[in-house]
Amino acid sequence: MLRVAVFGCGYWGPKVIRNLHALDGCEVRVACDSDPERVEAVRKTYPTIRRVDRTEDVLGDPDVDGVVICTPVRTHFPLARAALEAGKHVLVTKPMTDSVESAETLVELAEARGLTLQVDHTFIYSGAVQKAREIIESGAVGELLYADFVRVNLGLFQTDTSVLWDLAPHDLSILDYLVDASPRWVSAIGTRHYGQFEDQAYVTVGYDGSFIGHLHVNWLAPVKVRSTLIGGSRRMIVYDDLEPSEKVRVYDKGVTLAGDAGSREQALVDYRVGDMYAPHIDKTEPLQKVCESFRDAIVRGVPCPTDGAAGLSVVRMLEAAQESIRKNGERIFLESGR
Amino acid sequence: MLRVAVFGCGYWGPKVIRNLHALDGCEVRVACDSDPERVEAVRKTYPTIRRVDRTEDVLGDPDVDGVVICTPVRTHFPLARAALEAGKHVLVTKPMTDSVESAETLVELAEARGLTLQVDHTFIYSGAVQKAREIIESGAVGELLYADFVRVNLGLFQTDTSVLWDLAPHDLSILDYLVDASPRWVSAIGTRHYGQFEDQAYVTVGYDGSFIGHLHVNWLAPVKVRSTLIGGSRRMIVYDDLEPSEKVRVYDKGVTLAGDAGSREQALVDYRVGDMYAPHIDKTEPLQKVCESFRDAIVRGVPCPTDGAAGLSVVRMLEAAQESIRKNGERIFLESGR
Amino acid sequence: MLRVAVFGCGYWGPKVIRNLHALDGCEVRVACDSDPERVEAVRKTYPTIRRVDRTEDVLGDPDVDGVVICTPVRTHFPLARAALEAGKHVLVTKPMTDSVESAETLVELAEARGLTLQVDHTFIYSGAVQKAREIIESGAVGELLYADFVRVNLGLFQTDTSVLWDLAPHDLSILDYLVDASPRWVSAIGTRHYGQFEDQAYVTVGYDGSFIGHLHVNWLAPVKVRSTLIGGSRRMIVYDDLEPSEKVRVYDKGVTLAGDAGSREQALVDYRVGDMYAPHIDKTEPLQKVCESFRDAIVRGVPCPTDGAAGLSVVRMLEAAQESIRKNGERIFLESGR
Amino acid sequence: MLRVAVFGCGYWGPKVIRNLHALDGCEVRVACDSDPERVEAVRKTYPTIRRVDRTEDVLGDPDVDGVVICTPVRTHFPLARAALEAGKHVLVTKPMTDSVESAETLVELAEARGLTLQVDHTFIYSGAVQKAREIIESGAVGELLYADFVRVNLGLFQTDTSVLWDLAPHDLSILDYLVDASPRWVSAIGTRHYGQFEDQAYVTVGYDGSFIGHLHVNWLAPVKVRSTLIGGSRRMIVYDDLEPSEKVRVYDKGVTLAGDAGSREQALVDYRVGDMYAPHIDKTEPLQKVCESFRDAIVRGVPCPTDGAAGLSVVRMLEAAQESIRKNGERIFLESGR
Repeated sequence: MLRVAVFGCGYWGPKVIRNLHALDGCEVRVACDSDPERVEAVRKTYPTIRRVDRTEDVLGDPDVDGVVICTPVRTHFPLARAALEAGKHVLVTKPMTDSVESAETLVELAEARGLTLQVDHTFIYSGAVQKAREIIESGAVGELLYADFVRVNLGLFQTDTSVLWDLAPHDLSILDYLVDASPRWVSAIGTRHYGQFEDQAYVTVGYDGSFIGHLHVNWLAPVKVRSTLIGGSRRMIVYDDLEPSEKVRVYDKGVTLAGDAGSREQALVDYRVGDMYAPHIDKTEPLQKVCESFRDAIVRGVPCPTDGAAGLSVVRMLEAAQESIRKNGERIFLESGR
Repeated sequence: MLRVAVFGCGYWGPKVIRNLHALDGCEVRVACDSDPERVEAVRKTYPTIRRVDRTEDVLGDPDVDGVVICTPVRTHFPLARAALEAGKHVLVTKPMTDSVESAETLVELAEARGLTLQVDHTFIYSGAVQKAREIIESGAVGELLYADFVRVNLGLFQTDTSVLWDLAPHDLSILDYLVDASPRWVSAIGTRHYGQFEDQAYVTVGYDGSFIGHLHVNWLAPVKVRSTLIGGSRRMIVYDDLEPSEKVRVYDKGVTLAGDAGSREQALVDYRVGDMYAPHIDKTEPLQKVCESFRDAIVRGVPCPTDGAAGLSVVRMLEAAQESIRKNGERIFLESGR
Repeated sequence: MLRVAVFGCGYWGPKVIRNLHALDGCEVRVACDSDPERVEAVRKTYPTIRRVDRTEDVLGDPDVDGVVICTPVRTHFPLARAALEAGKHVLVTKPMTDSVESAETLVELAEARGLTLQVDHTFIYSGAVQKAREIIESGAVGELLYADFVRVNLGLFQTDTSVLWDLAPHDLSILDYLVDASPRWVSAIGTRHYGQFEDQAYVTVGYDGSFIGHLHVNWLAPVKVRSTLIGGSRRMIVYDDLEPSEKVRVYDKGVTLAGDAGSREQALVDYRVGDMYAPHIDKTEPLQKVCESFRDAIVRGVPCPTDGAAGLSVVRMLEAAQESIRKNGERIFLESGR
Repeated sequence: MLRVAVFGCGYWGPKVIRNLHALDGCEVRVACDSDPERVEAVRKTYPTIRRVDRTEDVLGDPDVDGVVICTPVRTHFPLARAALEAGKHVLVTKPMTDSVESAETLVELAEARGLTLQVDHTFIYSGAVQKAREIIESGAVGELLYADFVRVNLGLFQTDTSVLWDLAPHDLSILDYLVDASPRWVSAIGTRHYGQFEDQAYVTVGYDGSFIGHLHVNWLAPVKVRSTLIGGSRRMIVYDDLEPSEKVRVYDKGVTLAGDAGSREQALVDYRVGDMYAPHIDKTEPLQKVCESFRDAIVRGVPCPTDGAAGLSVVRMLEAAQESIRKNGERIFLESGR
């Protein structure tokens, strides 16, 4: 039986608790929040969970095997480090930390202690992203040409972070998961219309070769869009997370280079438009799978697709994007990938 | 009676001819194309139009008052210059020319000769863009925050141009028309997957203040998207050109800064979500209005919203975007706007 | 404090319990189901709720003021009657009962005992239906011409009922709520492809004058549709329950009869196409309002819009539709409306 | 060379002329309309077409091989009969005539004279309907369960016909084409809100077995809908004519009867939800294929899928629907199918 403590009972914490609670072989022992009333609200539904108000009391509890950190971003690092140092497994909401340095520290610490460090990149566990990766890995898409992500709506302004650090982790983690290559550089443009944090940003991620990823994240959009275009040399994918049933559509569309042209550049370009298909998508709640993955990593040593290295990779891109925004869109090169 | 010659009978020319032919007070006298068969195909429907094969014969014809240039981009400048020098009024398809220098030359030449120089930025004449501008000018949108354009599909690869010069003129002309300010800088990222020209590009246009415009143009997308988001401090607009009836939707959504906070940055941000309305849009074919505007500019001196200066402004942004692509996304500052 | 017992912990019961549990001034004391495991599943989340296995023990409990019946349709009548006879207020899921006779018995019994009898026509409490009624009552729609309902998908086959009795109550209750008139006749066509119950049905409801309501309900459709068209002489409404934000759209479209034509039939018909607007819709969970309404009816005597009479009216139309199906679509006249 | 005369140059006639004009081996010789100005408007574009004002002069012209009738419905019969009697092949817009009796007369007359009689059920020639039939014939859909057609919008009121005779021919012809069986009965409900003709109607077409077809046609709807659901035992089809690219979607969804249940009615019903695919649809203009079919039937004797018998079958259903409306929805049995 995996015994878990949850830090943070705001928006995401209760959802995590609901899923952990329903998970076989897992028990939520303790909940902790700087606002005790939030914990009590959770306890109305789950009265068996104990409220503990001091972090050190949670981390010192020998009956707690792992902690889930659902607190604001800036607290991720101190909490996760303290937890790892106390010998606890850690699952932390995205982004893993707010700097590459702290993310690296956590990865090293977890490795040194032999503890599980997992980041809750929830979308990686969705049926849609799983299916998209499966299709790409099958070769059906051919060579990847680009991936374009739009994630916009009239968002909840955060008091301690920007739209970049709030929304972009979703798409950067998906990009990292779908592309079998390391990003080389990041450039970004961000604007602030209210407050001190960016509320709109465009991020480009460059790789070796001509493939690029591009994100549009925006807290100031009139409509909600969650749309991803993935261009391939053989087929193309549209992943629309707001579609109720056909979230992933695969288009047999593309470009064919004609005949015996000497070089690619001189070749004649031809079009191909064929059928579209939308594979059946597993609708299991992704957060349920995140929790299963955490349990299985700890209990059975099953590798987790969103481990510390995955978390670090996303933080590396975020930090580079932030630097690029500060430098008016200059390309920021990444030292090493995952 | 305005007597017109049309150069270029490929894709766009016959559409222009159809509209000019239906226009009161206008007569298409001559059509000219490097491929005489194209002219003959037009003449099957409009047998009264004369075919003339040599440019100089068209420009030397005293019975031709104006010319419409629907030829490939690289020929716009020599043809338009020769036409203006021959004393003909000129309507040229977008983009006006392929360099700022040549665009400036045309503007100066037209002004010196007192001739009409108009560029066919067709979308400016659409009911949807007219309505969007009307709404913005009414103040209903408040301060403009950003404009985001997506114009993608599995496009027709051009042999002599890139997706930047092919598709971006549409959105840059709309941006220029909607925003009552001069762009200050442009940055862009473009990729080439087939051939020597970009088939995908992201362009950012910066202004004084925090407003930015952003474009995604793409010839390699599986689905057709023609979507524009315009964020304002009071209301926001979605302009979706593929919507059959509600092309322009105005959302009474926005952000309110709370109370007596000392500075804007410290203010609390609040949300407002109200009704949406979609005004009735005039469905007149925009190209018909382009033709009317050309006639009215010549015959009655009515100012044209897409004159040479408008064409130059778009070319200036295109050239800067091309330079930025070459310089890895560096901001290219514009000397002067319109 | 209103003390409630809930019968039936299958699909709907737990949702009702969640809403009652969150409601001020209300307490769920007891849950009862023929399958005790279902009750225990509920009690994992709400351990303060007692499990009682025998109906008579629930109804004999003096600490229970009202019961909510979420059991299969055929049990509604015996359970509700027993509850009313035991002096309990009753909220029953739709349809109220499976026959006009039993529905009438319940209405009379509740009235005789001075007890609240409410039917859970959930959609009546949705922001969208409330807004549609508000717009119709304001006169903005003009004279109602027709209402067309489509409610189809690959539905859950019920073992004890047809698509008519399963899905049509939703739309019949909405129709009854929006139209300020009594239905005069019903005709229906139903087909059975699997099993002994209809899995597809078309129902027409006639009124005095030319207004008609029409329903398509279907358990065998490949896609989910929840769409209602309401035609009016001045404006028209589209209510699409699957739209995430603009569920109700009001079209300023219509037909105008021209001039001084002697009679309506000879008049010239003209079109009017204007703006569309989509009012902001209250997104409160309708079931929460159902529960509030039940509490307020009992505690404060507030009239409930879906009382026994409303439930009876819907059952009357259902029974007539069933009879019409049996009689090959013959019109079945209703003795009296609500 | 097939030499054709066209009667009626209102809305549809000029479209037919454009397609006939572009057709190899076909020449539009003559156009005729009660309003000579309409013919002259056509002649502005096609000056080689002669205007002839008197019907008898057209039919007496030995240089005319076939006529296309694009006039109001009530004139179809007299014109088509006169044309056939004059030895001309006939293509007539839908519906073929306004009564079964006259339709039968035309069919017999054409057969007796050995002339081609074709009705312009345009949708039959669309890539989407062709694909739907191909899929059904392949067995992929399994046994057909139902077909549901919705064809509504704010339509053009016709002065001489009802929405039933105006819009229903489209869907009845598609139904007839997709279903390999003869309709047995028709029932219908229609309402008149303006004028003497129905502006909204619901039509049900019954067959042997449990399969039914159902239509909703409406001139008074706020939005345009052109949607068809086809339920099958193995797969289901959605045909949405307003979808720009994926007009036909095939859903691998269905119902499976479980195990060794004694009879179908007692069987347990299970669900199957799999992939969806949208086959590539040929986008050739259907009217072009109608014209080709007319030419090929006359010149080469190629059977036409929308011959007189197909036209008669649709008229038979229309007349029965009209009778059913008059008789309050009573089932009207059809004597014989196609």
